[in-house]
Amino acid sequence: MSEIRKHYFLEKYCVIAGERSKRPTDFVKERAPEPGPETCSFCPGNEDLTPAATAVYRYEGKKLVIQKDEDNKRVKDWEVRCFPNLYPALPGHEIIAETPDHEKHPSDFTDDEITLLMQVYSDRTTHHLENNDTQYVSLFRNHGRDAGASLSHPHTQLIPVPFVPPMIMQELTAIEEADRCPYCDIVERESGGERVIIENDYWIVFAPYCSRLPFEMWMLPKKHVSSITAIGDLAPMGKALRDALLKLKTLLNNPTYNYMFFQMDSSSYHLNIRIEPKLSIAAGFEKNTDVFINTMPPEDAARSLREIDAPLKI
Amino acid sequence: MSEIRKHYFLEKYCVIAGERSKRPTDFVKERAPEPGPETCSFCPGNEDLTPAATAVYRYEGKKLVIQKDEDNKRVKDWEVRCFPNLYPALPGHEIIAETPDHEKHPSDFTDDEITLLMQVYSDRTTHHLENNDTQYVSLFRNHGRDAGASLSHPHTQLIPVPFVPPMIMQELTAIEEADRCPYCDIVERESGGERVIIENDYWIVFAPYCSRLPFEMWMLPKKHVSSITAIGDLAPMGKALRDALLKLKTLLNNPTYNYMFFQMDSSSYHLNIRIEPKLSIAAGFEKNTDVFINTMPPEDAARSLREIDAPLKI
Repeated sequence: MSEIRKHYFLEKYCVIAGERSKRPTDFVKERAPEPGPETCSFCPGNEDLTPAATAVYRYEGKKLVIQKDEDNKRVKDWEVRCFPNLYPALPGHEIIAETPDHEKHPSDFTDDEITLLMQVYSDRTTHHLENNDTQYVSLFRNHGRDAGASLSHPHTQLIPVPFVPPMIMQELTAIEEADRCPYCDIVERESGGERVIIENDYWIVFAPYCSRLPFEMWMLPKKHVSSITAIGDLAPMGKALRDALLKLKTLLNNPTYNYMFFQMDSSSYHLNIRIEPKLSIAAGFEKNTDVFINTMPPEDAARSLREIDAPLKI
Repeated sequence: MSEIRKHYFLEKYCVIAGERSKRPTDFVKERAPEPGPETCSFCPGNEDLTPAATAVYRYEGKKLVIQKDEDNKRVKDWEVRCFPNLYPALPGHEIIAETPDHEKHPSDFTDDEITLLMQVYSDRTTHHLENNDTQYVSLFRNHGRDAGASLSHPHTQLIPVPFVPPMIMQELTAIEEADRCPYCDIVERESGGERVIIENDYWIVFAPYCSRLPFEMWMLPKKHVSSITAIGDLAPMGKALRDALLKLKTLLNNPTYNYMFFQMDSSSYHLNIRIEPKLSIAAGFEKNTDVFINTMPPEDAARSLREIDAPLKI
């Protein structure tokens, strides 16, 4: 039997389609190999193929330093490199090359590497919010061609938006109209439950009750925090995100995915990161109704992901 | 330069990304062949592989008759066949096999065939609205595997929804709060303009000002009508839809697409059909903001589609 479920606090619905439900292996796809690194403009040595970097993170001995490219001189030997997109969707559109290694994605980062990436996310969010024209900072990662990544070198994107997207504003309004933060309620409701995937003192990663997509994951700080810029210790955050991605990669043969940071410069908002593997197609019904048919009950998805040990080999 | 555009009357935005803009040929994709008809359960002769039909349209001589399957006897020699989906997403989920011909899609229908299909759409909408549990009838077509069609035999789907989807309700509220119907305003604004693709006395097909997707098309009756069930003469409607699909097929090498009927059993609503070719990927930014980056300005899309002669060979 199909079950209609409502979002925790928004007027959004999904159909958990039990009669069509599948095993995790039914979602494993053969993926065409991504193009190789020969002409990768994000790889070390090709820095001249991109605009001058706005922030380059590198180590001098054990000390982390942050530098910028000069017009005619590119900083080399970097760990993470942030630079303007050559084809900006909006002014300020930035690429964060996450590692010099063309083949190493965040699911396989060491603790130090993933913590540094979180630091860069935080710094770049702060940097862009300092621009008065920016009302919202969209921070997201497209993994694989199917999920919209046109270049395969590991990278995150940041697009400053000159208005608050109505979808975000609607959510903020619903949060501010509630007696207490609905995300704090979600942490309480899901903690220790059957939809948990990863949980520690600071973070919870779970399959939301109202999962619109197979193997969708939400990641929430247990403490009410509005943005990554207000997280004190970024190491537990990075590990939780890395482990969630590694579980996904292991269970489903490196599926393509997007992850998005939902965060605001408003104390009412509660930071949340959503990981959406690309395993289904939003077709006519979804486009007609905004109601999503999901053939993988989140309770089953969470059990399968929970059972995968992560980190496996880091 | 990128341009941010707002929807005609809703709080929705898109970015027309001029710096990334492309020619129509850049959107042409090689498509893997769809599976052949050997085991097609929608093909004539295989009626026993589906549940008993709820409505079968066939000709007796020149007279159109509508019959139903009996439990142990399937009606043969049909033109259009409606039957319950073996794997319903929701109760009542219905398949409309549009033609006995496995290879013939609505873009290639004759005038009579497409008019009959519109008649079936109207009849089945009426039929499902008679059920008091049904608050919304979702009528849509997925064309091609990429667009969510798991079977390649030409078919439309109808899913009765036991509530009005919030997205539709929000739109209805905005319409009812306006001084006059915003869709009637859109007809007036777009008629004769640079975004028109097909226009006659009764219908207009155009690329919306706020196109979220490359080559997106909207089709509106010029007269204020809330649903297909209130259209008197269905022939001009069918021809406009068929010609729009044929232009799309011709210009872009038979792309996959979805089309959806937006209609309500409420006189305030204004029927509109949206055709969304699947030529781009909604990636992290779209999922994070609900703002769509579109690399094909609708004015250019409309010009290219307008220049294609249709019908070509019917």
